Amino acid sequence: MAKKRHKKRAKPGLPPGTLVYTGYRDAQQAEVRSLWYKDTEVVLRDHYDPSLRQRPDGTLWIDVNNLTDTALIARIGGDFGIHPLALEDVLDTQQRPKLEEYGQHLFLILPNLRFQADTLELLHEQVAVCIGKNFVISFQEDPDDTFKQVRTRNLDGLGIMRRKGPDYLAYALTDTVVDNYYLVLDDVETAMQGLEVEITESGATMTCKAKIFQFKRIISQLRHRVMPLRDATLRFYRTENPLIEDQNRLYLRDVTDHVAQILDGIETAREVLTNVEALYHAEVANRMNNVMRLLTVISTIFIPLSFVAGIYGMNFDNMPELHWRNGYFIVLGTMLLVMVGMLIYFRRKRWI
Amino acid sequence: MAKKRHKKRAKPGLPPGTLVYTGYRDAQQAEVRSLWYKDTEVVLRDHYDPSLRQRPDGTLWIDVNNLTDTALIARIGGDFGIHPLALEDVLDTQQRPKLEEYGQHLFLILPNLRFQADTLELLHEQVAVCIGKNFVISFQEDPDDTFKQVRTRNLDGLGIMRRKGPDYLAYALTDTVVDNYYLVLDDVETAMQGLEVEITESGATMTCKAKIFQFKRIISQLRHRVMPLRDATLRFYRTENPLIEDQNRLYLRDVTDHVAQILDGIETAREVLTNVEALYHAEVANRMNNVMRLLTVISTIFIPLSFVAGIYGMNFDNMPELHWRNGYFIVLGTMLLVMVGMLIYFRRKRWI
Amino acid sequence: MAKKRHKKRAKPGLPPGTLVYTGYRDAQQAEVRSLWYKDTEVVLRDHYDPSLRQRPDGTLWIDVNNLTDTALIARIGGDFGIHPLALEDVLDTQQRPKLEEYGQHLFLILPNLRFQADTLELLHEQVAVCIGKNFVISFQEDPDDTFKQVRTRNLDGLGIMRRKGPDYLAYALTDTVVDNYYLVLDDVETAMQGLEVEITESGATMTCKAKIFQFKRIISQLRHRVMPLRDATLRFYRTENPLIEDQNRLYLRDVTDHVAQILDGIETAREVLTNVEALYHAEVANRMNNVMRLLTVISTIFIPLSFVAGIYGMNFDNMPELHWRNGYFIVLGTMLLVMVGMLIYFRRKRWI
Amino acid sequence: MAKKRHKKRAKPGLPPGTLVYTGYRDAQQAEVRSLWYKDTEVVLRDHYDPSLRQRPDGTLWIDVNNLTDTALIARIGGDFGIHPLALEDVLDTQQRPKLEEYGQHLFLILPNLRFQADTLELLHEQVAVCIGKNFVISFQEDPDDTFKQVRTRNLDGLGIMRRKGPDYLAYALTDTVVDNYYLVLDDVETAMQGLEVEITESGATMTCKAKIFQFKRIISQLRHRVMPLRDATLRFYRTENPLIEDQNRLYLRDVTDHVAQILDGIETAREVLTNVEALYHAEVANRMNNVMRLLTVISTIFIPLSFVAGIYGMNFDNMPELHWRNGYFIVLGTMLLVMVGMLIYFRRKRWI
Amino acid sequence: MAKKRHKKRAKPGLPPGTLVYTGYRDAQQAEVRSLWYKDTEVVLRDHYDPSLRQRPDGTLWIDVNNLTDTALIARIGGDFGIHPLALEDVLDTQQRPKLEEYGQHLFLILPNLRFQADTLELLHEQVAVCIGKNFVISFQEDPDDTFKQVRTRNLDGLGIMRRKGPDYLAYALTDTVVDNYYLVLDDVETAMQGLEVEITESGATMTCKAKIFQFKRIISQLRHRVMPLRDATLRFYRTENPLIEDQNRLYLRDVTDHVAQILDGIETAREVLTNVEALYHAEVANRMNNVMRLLTVISTIFIPLSFVAGIYGMNFDNMPELHWRNGYFIVLGTMLLVMVGMLIYFRRKRWI
Repeated sequence: MAKKRHKKRAKPGLPPGTLVYTGYRDAQQAEVRSLWYKDTEVVLRDHYDPSLRQRPDGTLWIDVNNLTDTALIARIGGDFGIHPLALEDVLDTQQRPKLEEYGQHLFLILPNLRFQADTLELLHEQVAVCIGKNFVISFQEDPDDTFKQVRTRNLDGLGIMRRKGPDYLAYALTDTVVDNYYLVLDDVETAMQGLEVEITESGATMTCKAKIFQFKRIISQLRHRVMPLRDATLRFYRTENPLIEDQNRLYLRDVTDHVAQILDGIETAREVLTNVEALYHAEVANRMNNVMRLLTVISTIFIPLSFVAGIYGMNFDNMPELHWRNGYFIVLGTMLLVMVGMLIYFRRKRWI
Repeated sequence: MAKKRHKKRAKPGLPPGTLVYTGYRDAQQAEVRSLWYKDTEVVLRDHYDPSLRQRPDGTLWIDVNNLTDTALIARIGGDFGIHPLALEDVLDTQQRPKLEEYGQHLFLILPNLRFQADTLELLHEQVAVCIGKNFVISFQEDPDDTFKQVRTRNLDGLGIMRRKGPDYLAYALTDTVVDNYYLVLDDVETAMQGLEVEITESGATMTCKAKIFQFKRIISQLRHRVMPLRDATLRFYRTENPLIEDQNRLYLRDVTDHVAQILDGIETAREVLTNVEALYHAEVANRMNNVMRLLTVISTIFIPLSFVAGIYGMNFDNMPELHWRNGYFIVLGTMLLVMVGMLIYFRRKRWI
Repeated sequence: MAKKRHKKRAKPGLPPGTLVYTGYRDAQQAEVRSLWYKDTEVVLRDHYDPSLRQRPDGTLWIDVNNLTDTALIARIGGDFGIHPLALEDVLDTQQRPKLEEYGQHLFLILPNLRFQADTLELLHEQVAVCIGKNFVISFQEDPDDTFKQVRTRNLDGLGIMRRKGPDYLAYALTDTVVDNYYLVLDDVETAMQGLEVEITESGATMTCKAKIFQFKRIISQLRHRVMPLRDATLRFYRTENPLIEDQNRLYLRDVTDHVAQILDGIETAREVLTNVEALYHAEVANRMNNVMRLLTVISTIFIPLSFVAGIYGMNFDNMPELHWRNGYFIVLGTMLLVMVGMLIYFRRKRWI
Repeated sequence: MAKKRHKKRAKPGLPPGTLVYTGYRDAQQAEVRSLWYKDTEVVLRDHYDPSLRQRPDGTLWIDVNNLTDTALIARIGGDFGIHPLALEDVLDTQQRPKLEEYGQHLFLILPNLRFQADTLELLHEQVAVCIGKNFVISFQEDPDDTFKQVRTRNLDGLGIMRRKGPDYLAYALTDTVVDNYYLVLDDVETAMQGLEVEITESGATMTCKAKIFQFKRIISQLRHRVMPLRDATLRFYRTENPLIEDQNRLYLRDVTDHVAQILDGIETAREVLTNVEALYHAEVANRMNNVMRLLTVISTIFIPLSFVAGIYGMNFDNMPELHWRNGYFIVLGTMLLVMVGMLIYFRRKRWI
Repeated sequence: MAKKRHKKRAKPGLPPGTLVYTGYRDAQQAEVRSLWYKDTEVVLRDHYDPSLRQRPDGTLWIDVNNLTDTALIARIGGDFGIHPLALEDVLDTQQRPKLEEYGQHLFLILPNLRFQADTLELLHEQVAVCIGKNFVISFQEDPDDTFKQVRTRNLDGLGIMRRKGPDYLAYALTDTVVDNYYLVLDDVETAMQGLEVEITESGATMTCKAKIFQFKRIISQLRHRVMPLRDATLRFYRTENPLIEDQNRLYLRDVTDHVAQILDGIETAREVLTNVEALYHAEVANRMNNVMRLLTVISTIFIPLSFVAGIYGMNFDNMPELHWRNGYFIVLGTMLLVMVGMLIYFRRKRWI
């Protein structure tokens, strides 16, 4: 689950390079799509077909959905000569975002996030992208296909993707993941505004407090995910690896810009949350103040009056006032006057 | 609106380079002015006239107001060979300030801010400046013309602008935007001083609290806008692009100095706000203390006296004091003495 | 004990290089194992046998458990030409993690941690690894053998260790220590979740407060241990020392990745703890509020009623109500109505 | 005034290089002193005399006091070929401290501070120093002559100044300004100690709170002034400009050391202030606690006793105790005992 | 005194290089020891003897205790050609730790600290070390000889010092000063643990608060002293000055390691102090809560009961209960029941 930040290795001391899927998704048939394209031609197969790689020119995109079939992953790794450590990272789904260079390949780890507004949870799916000389392999942990639109654009010949090589494809995949963050941020902020309204309207309940804690966790997770992503995209933009053509660097710069913008947005969201929390505390303090004020107003009015009543309840033989004709009414009237006077006084001080 | 820090892309997965205006301004006729000048001659046309570029020497300044006419933007982009990603940034009006180099052009994104004192809002307009070999194109999001004075100075031949090239013009535009921040900062500080007075005079109301939150948001926005602007102007000053003449670098250094000064000013404004908030809290705590003190004073004076009255209200057969001639008056006198004594005591302790 | 962060040198001014064991473990027979291996052959001796080093090719691994036998340490130091300062660091068991290069050798200090959930203590054992041309010497402070699994893997010929040299062995040892942190972090977080439950269920007791303090100490210790470890592993990965073969650097990069991930995890744990503490304070404040509310409700209901009772306890001669037939019942009824009304009022305000 | 951190430009959009004095000092006759010296000879004229520059060897020091005479400044700028942007900075008296290189000249902006203990204000005067091949021009904003002592030392032939060139003179001026900070810091700390005593002795009044705010402002201003000064002096020390002779760099290093020391001192002052503020809050909390304790002690003693008195004030027909001979005295005695017991109890708990 | 962080120059504007002792120690006869040694020979004179420098090979160590005799310092400076600015720093005893290179010499400023547990004060003594081609001069501010043990080791021929040159001697002196910090840190932490016990046992008194403030000051001082020391030792280790032999760099690296370790220790101490302070505040809050709870318990029990007593103290003619035979006892019994019930209720809520 996304809430688990660090994995528990099956057993410290296992030889590195052992392929174990560490995510929480249930075992399932992996969906694999093989898409080969060049400027004027596209071939799409709904299964794993490495033979497409033989074709001259063009770019092959293998898109793997669901990672529970480790045998398949191992086979792909073998077919395309992916380094065992990279394969291990594909399956170990709590990796930090990073760009790694393995001789022949570039290897990208990207966190794909989704915000579930009803449970205030941040769902995390790891996406790994391996870029080779004339191919790109993408590994998605979740069954729902994040890259559908990229594929459609390619099939429909929209944009310039078909005229470009694997570096542009990898850019397009990264851009899709990064663009997703805008949605996540928007959803988080909308949910926070809802909380703000809730606090103002129905008071500072313990539920609100709990929600504030959950938002804190979400924003902290967001930051932990996106911070290293900035480094990864920056290194993607700056790498001197010949797999990246210079003319495509502008696009990668654009992605790093977006990531920086998202980090700004996270910072802003955190400040908004700080304000929401301050509002909560102000609300709590306000209620407490009201409680104390009420206590004080009641006590200040009635304790002295009770004292006066106590005076005339004393049993001294010689208490002349008791025998006055209108003594009782005078005292009662005075008490009433004092009470009204105090109410006016407190009203002026805005206590009531 | 300026309150929205991060944009929502129409749809993640759209091919990059698609021109969509993402601001909130209503569609409107764009005002375009074409100003061509050299040392001894100025030509101003109140429409878009790329033909002026053919003239030998001189600098052409195209100034576009209002960005809703994307077709026009695309046409200008085509005429001057601006990179599609740059054009996209012109229209995507929540870009971070930045300087980007696109082969033939330098491309500047500047945030122009205005503070609306009555609603405590920070309005944001994106200004984009594209610098080419013998031209400058400025894109202003808002209809009100920020660069009017620069144009007037040019037309009147004031300063040295007419003797300089496009780099100096771009500097003049940047300087105008940056100088605006001094006004914004001043307005914000004036408004904060007003709040300070309000807190001291009319007490710590919930309205004050709300205003403090708004100021926090404003200062955070200011910082988020100006922080990357510092990098942008620094890179403008340091770029080795041949579009910038070395003798004009001193001016760009001056601008970076101003931005640094503004950042200092924002920092100061934040500290002032922290103090205002502390004042608010001190005021709240003070009122609470007063409430508690009043409660304590009243209770401490009357609870013991009520007890004494209660004593003499008991119905024991044998209570000698009750039958004393002046028992009542003695008790009453003693109570009065105690009361006065306590009032003096509390006065000395400065509780009342 | 692990709680002691900085050592007390026996006496400032001692000549450097003096071998003194500064840990707290009791003197004990050191267990030493000598393991020599090459691709096709393994020799394991359960004692210190430097003669194995004479064999051509292969790698010799001397594994020393328990450091109280300083004479033996000195002898090993002499046999393998280890620098006196390095030997001193082996025995001074509160060293910061570091990688140092001593001409012929690389020298690694690693902190091995264990979390004791029942006492909320973080136990620390220092592990030193000395890498030479064809040997690795590991010094473990604790008797329980952390590296058992590495040895087993080597003996069983699992993984690729037997085909690699001392640099890979040193990597395997480091990886074992680093992997251990995942367990520690998991245990700490589990314990913190237990505390969270405890606070919610049995209220904010002083025991909870004490536990929060202990967790703070633990997380601070963790950070202090792992922070310099990052530098150490980074330098291990980047060192240009010929003892490290270039093809093995990928493995070292993997270790630095893990350390970065652990630092993230520690950061997360700290944020979780912050939330637990905030929960504690919210719970404390909540209880206090309940106390104050109860006081206020009781006072607000009964003080005015008592006043009324006091009124009719006065002894004036002329108090007509007293002589009404149903005066008593009318007053009693009114009081009851007021009481019920107030209870409804407070219930609506959610005070009771 | 020094309280105004950022200037308001007369009008954004003014051509740069326009000379406007932006300080708050009243227009006044500028005092100018021209001092020419070499190893064996000194000439001092109490007016502006650029002709001294013609003399072979030697150094000319023009010292300008008061900047309201912009015509004079412009004339000096023309005579010595000072860049317009530098001249503008001389007059714009809220510049950040900086060192700038303008081809032939080095240009230093230094903030000279003075602490006014009675009003708790930090007064700021801008000092600009322009260093040329054989001259130094210093511009002081304030009429009171900060550099008097440097001049006297020069005239009296004290120290080594007469044997050195303009770089040493500039160093001497900078050193004088920097040394001044020690006095400011000392005065600020003395004033803070006074506040500490005031809080302890006369309690936490609102005046104290206000003073704490003022000190915060002062320390923040100090830091804002000195922070960039460190960069400026560092660049002064490291510049490779031929105007600085290598043998004089040691002196400049000394100045940067002093600035670092002052920054340390400011940091310390800030921590002292934090402690003063904590003391204030402790004092406030302490007083509140005393209030609450008094309330509780009084209530806890008298409310139960009043209840007992109330019991025996009931009018039941059959209340045997009322008819006991010593009933009243027994009850009175018991009450007294309870009261004394409680007082002892509270005394033991150190509540009274 | 050590509490004074920044010096007050006698008078800003004094020519630099003037020798004035700025410490607080009383004028006193300086103790000087001259120790000359080479591998096989040692000569110790208990006075200043520069003639020993004439001897071929070997290292001369001049150790000066007490700095009030400025004439002697000046003479030594002259004999060994020490730069005036360095001499000034020797006497100006509030210098920041630093390493400076003056052509022929290396010059080290080291802060030697001592913690006085009874007054919770941190005493500071400045130690300056000047390293030349075949000599080392150490200046100690305090009369008590910190370097006694180094001398003894040298005289006894312990360690390798006699075989090494002045760089090793300087290392040994630095190491002695640095090792001292371990003692200081230990003493500070022991004292803090004492405070922790005091708070838990005798409650949160104002004395504890004062001590917490003092510890804050101490830790801040420690950090201010050791932070620049790290830079100084790092520069000592890295300097390419030929006075340092490459084979001795390992020792200097060791010292920088120790300083880093001490900084860690200071950080830990600060966290411990934060916990102590939190404990203090928890204790204060706890006591306050107890106060409030007592008030609430007493009020909640007795105010309603008093009301009931008030009811039956009313003087209505027609109050049937008053005439019941056992009315009084029924009411008394009911009150007792209510009281017991409430006590049980509060006990269950753990309020009493």
